[in-house]
Amino acid sequence: MALLIAVKGWDPAPWAERMKERLPEHEIRTWPDAMGDPRDIEYVLTWKAPGELLNSLPGLKVIFSLGAGVDHILKGQSLPDVPVVRVVDPDLTARMTEWITLQVLLHHRKLPTYAEQQTKRLWKEHTQPGTAEVRVGILGLGVLGKDAAEMLVRFGFNVAGWARSKKAIEGVECFAGAAELDAFLARTDILVNLLPLTPDTTHLIDHAFLSKLARDGVHGGPIFINAGRGATQVEGDIVRALTDGTLKAASLDVFETEPLASDSPLWNLPNAIITPHIAADSDPAALSTYVAGQIRAFEAGKPLENLVDLKAGY
Amino acid sequence: MALLIAVKGWDPAPWAERMKERLPEHEIRTWPDAMGDPRDIEYVLTWKAPGELLNSLPGLKVIFSLGAGVDHILKGQSLPDVPVVRVVDPDLTARMTEWITLQVLLHHRKLPTYAEQQTKRLWKEHTQPGTAEVRVGILGLGVLGKDAAEMLVRFGFNVAGWARSKKAIEGVECFAGAAELDAFLARTDILVNLLPLTPDTTHLIDHAFLSKLARDGVHGGPIFINAGRGATQVEGDIVRALTDGTLKAASLDVFETEPLASDSPLWNLPNAIITPHIAADSDPAALSTYVAGQIRAFEAGKPLENLVDLKAGY
Repeated sequence: MALLIAVKGWDPAPWAERMKERLPEHEIRTWPDAMGDPRDIEYVLTWKAPGELLNSLPGLKVIFSLGAGVDHILKGQSLPDVPVVRVVDPDLTARMTEWITLQVLLHHRKLPTYAEQQTKRLWKEHTQPGTAEVRVGILGLGVLGKDAAEMLVRFGFNVAGWARSKKAIEGVECFAGAAELDAFLARTDILVNLLPLTPDTTHLIDHAFLSKLARDGVHGGPIFINAGRGATQVEGDIVRALTDGTLKAASLDVFETEPLASDSPLWNLPNAIITPHIAADSDPAALSTYVAGQIRAFEAGKPLENLVDLKAGY
Repeated sequence: MALLIAVKGWDPAPWAERMKERLPEHEIRTWPDAMGDPRDIEYVLTWKAPGELLNSLPGLKVIFSLGAGVDHILKGQSLPDVPVVRVVDPDLTARMTEWITLQVLLHHRKLPTYAEQQTKRLWKEHTQPGTAEVRVGILGLGVLGKDAAEMLVRFGFNVAGWARSKKAIEGVECFAGAAELDAFLARTDILVNLLPLTPDTTHLIDHAFLSKLARDGVHGGPIFINAGRGATQVEGDIVRALTDGTLKAASLDVFETEPLASDSPLWNLPNAIITPHIAADSDPAALSTYVAGQIRAFEAGKPLENLVDLKAGY
C-alpha cells in the first residue's frame, strides 16, 4: 500500500525522501510522474492537488494538507469522502509567530521611520510609547492566532482577538461573531489577519472594514498585518487605504494572486512592507515527522488529530 | 531636605514634575537653574552630571543614575563616597528586549533581503532556517542580557552568553572570563553586545574580535548587534568588517560619539541598520516610580537595591 505526494509548484523530492525515512514500511510515490497504480494509494500528502486526482484513488483513506490553510484543496472542487487532516506543526506555528512578532515590533519601534532617517544621515529620536499603550487585534484565533496572541501578551501589548466562535485565551480579550466585530476593530491599533479563506472571509477586508479601526492610538493611525490568506483582502482597497491615510502602514505576506504582479502598486508604496508568502513555510523535515506520526497512530486504530471541518471550510 | 535632578542634554521638567507627584513631602530642585542651597540636597538623580557638582553637595546620601549604564558618571571623575544606585526598571528592560528581539528576528527572517527585492518588484522566496539552527551569543549577562537571552530562548534560538563571572540562566550556555571568550565567539552567528563600558571593555570589539565569530552558520556570515555602549566598539573596524565580509550585517544603536557624525561611512553601508540610541529609553514615569520607591525604602532603614560596584565600574 502506498502514500502519494502530490504537490503543485513544489519539488516533491525532499518530501518523498523524508517520508521514506520516516515510514520505511510504506511505499512512497510522487505525482504526476511516479504515481503507479492509483488503486494502491491509501494516503495523499497534498498542496494544491487537483480534485480529479483525489477522486481517482479508490483506496484513499486520509488526505493530509501541507500548509496551515486548506482552501487550496477545498476551493471549487468536490472531494472524496475521507478525512482531511490539516498540518498543525509546532515548527510552522513558531515561524508564523516569529514573523508576526517581527512585523508588530518593527512598526511599534518605528523602524521604517529610522530607516528613512538613515538614508538622510539624520539622527533624531522619536517618542516611544510602551507596549501596554498599543492595542493589537488578532483576526482568527486558531492554533496560529492563539500562539501569536500569547507571544504579544508576553511583550506587554494590549491584545484582543476575534473569531467566529467564542475563545478563551489568558490575557487576551476575546470577541466573537459578526455582532462583536465592529467593537473589536474600534479598539484595535495594529490588526493582524490570520483568518482562513472561506466564502464568508473572501474579500472581507476592504476599505470600509479598515475604516473601522481605531484612529486615536499612540501610533497616529492603524497598521494592518496580513499573514493569513491573500483573498481575504481587497488589494485595491488596501492600496487606497495606505494612500488616503485610512491605514498608517501595512505588512503583507499574502496576496489575492501570487506571485504578486510586478505592476501592482503595492510594491512601491512607501508605507507597505511586502514579503513573498514566507511568514510560515512548510518545512519538509518537521511536517514529514508530523504526518508519519499521524499515519502510525491511525494504523494503530487511534483517532486522527486536527481534522478539517469540511462544512465550515477550515 | 531636597532631591536634585541633574540631567545634561535632557529636559529636567518632566522628571521634576513626576518626582513631585511621587514624593510630595520632599523638595524637588533642578540643576543648574533651580538648585538652591547645595547643603540641603540629599539625593541626586543624574544623567551625565559633572563630578564637580556631585562633589559640592555636603549632605548627599545617594546618587541615582538614570540609565542602564553608569559610565556617564564614573568616567574620568572622582565621586563623593556615597552609594550609587543604577536604575533597573522593568520597563527599560522590556524595551531593550523588544529592540534586541526585533533586530535578531529581522536578520534571521531576512528582512533586508526582502526589502531589497521589494524595490525591484521581485517575488523570490529564500530558504528559511529554523531558530534552533541559529546560534545567538549575548555579551554581558546583567539584568538586560539575561532578559533578552530568555526571550530569544523562547523563540527557539540556540542561545549562549558571556560575562566576566560565571552566570546560570536556564536554557543558556554560559561562558565566563577571558579564557572562555574565544570559544564563545567561535560558536556565535549573531552577536548581541550589552557589555557595560569599563576600561576593560573600551574598544574591545575590533576587527580581530569580530574575526573570531563563527563563519559556518546557516546565515552565511556573522551578524553584530550593539545595544550596549558605543565606545566598546571600534567604529572604523566595524565599517571594515561590514565591507570585507568579516560581518554579514550589523544593527547599531550606539556609537563612539553620539549623535553619529553625518559623514560617518556607517550611514550608507547597505548591510548596516542604524538607530539613534533608542533601544531602551529612560521613561520618566516608570523610572520616577522606581527611584521614589528606593528613597522610601532607604528612609525606612531598608537596604538600597542595584548598587553600582564602583571598583568594577558597573
